[in-house]
Amino acid sequence: MKSVAILLAPGFEEIEFSAPLDILRRLQFNVVTVGIGGLNIEGTHGLVVVADTTLDSFTPHDFDAIILPGGPGAWILRDNATAIQHIIDMYHEHRLIAAICAAPIALARAGIVKGKDITAYPAQEILDALVEANITGKPVSVDGNIITGFGPGAAMAFGYAIGEYLGKDEDVATLKKAMMYY
Amino acid sequence: MKSVAILLAPGFEEIEFSAPLDILRRLQFNVVTVGIGGLNIEGTHGLVVVADTTLDSFTPHDFDAIILPGGPGAWILRDNATAIQHIIDMYHEHRLIAAICAAPIALARAGIVKGKDITAYPAQEILDALVEANITGKPVSVDGNIITGFGPGAAMAFGYAIGEYLGKDEDVATLKKAMMYY
Repeated sequence: MKSVAILLAPGFEEIEFSAPLDILRRLQFNVVTVGIGGLNIEGTHGLVVVADTTLDSFTPHDFDAIILPGGPGAWILRDNATAIQHIIDMYHEHRLIAAICAAPIALARAGIVKGKDITAYPAQEILDALVEANITGKPVSVDGNIITGFGPGAAMAFGYAIGEYLGKDEDVATLKKAMMYY
Repeated sequence: MKSVAILLAPGFEEIEFSAPLDILRRLQFNVVTVGIGGLNIEGTHGLVVVADTTLDSFTPHDFDAIILPGGPGAWILRDNATAIQHIIDMYHEHRLIAAICAAPIALARAGIVKGKDITAYPAQEILDALVEANITGKPVSVDGNIITGFGPGAAMAFGYAIGEYLGKDEDVATLKKAMMYY
């Protein structure tokens, strides 16, 4: 069973967090939520969730993929040196790096977006951070082992793309129907 | 400011809960999550969230709308006599009743679906419970003060429809763009 970590910083965007979690657990991946600075983490719209573990206890080599939700929490991820080092290491080990909305700013900080097809929330600060990337403007972009999404409206498509990348194309097609995705 | 309650039973469907919460808080409604049987509630895919209050402390007359997410938790809502009585009372006081996926079974138990345009997850047990309703098969249906959605894939559309019903049509149109809803 492949394992997926979702980094959960205070101010995470609730839909961008819960949609990939829901989809990837339905696909029978081992999904672990990793709280930054504690276990009880409050999202940008006040939803408090209890993470499975914390960044201090996170062992990146046990995971096939790491997911970064957007929201104001993306700036906390960008500025967390430990998180950025894990992203750099996992990227070079050919593990999947997935980021949505504002979170590609953390991939820019990790120095892994140069020349890559990347989508992100089209706010100027975010686009400025991604100046070395090729901004696609698509809901979801896949380039090598980087998957990006452009906002909450793409959160389910982003989750499905991660499932497909991790080898469950057929299950994703079935799941879209089961989830009444249209 | 209008107030919206979301009932949160163990086994709630994570996307169907978080999408309306996220959208309605962005629209500046007072959104209160109401835990059934406690404050820490675990969703059907293992996400633990901390509710704002519990059903014992819930004062339905303070709310303009009540939302019921789907997932296995919908059966717990259906079988909770206190929750069902609140739904009956709020319906007859012309407050909004909104339910998605499996949760329209609780509206059937409340006896408020006869002849109504209702959408729901198309599993046989759910359709059987809604035999007196007019099942539309649409992602979202609005009939009087009842709004229903047919599954997680419609969770954002369901949230937007609730915002429009509560009088924020223009804000919803703006929000859809801001959330990159496509």
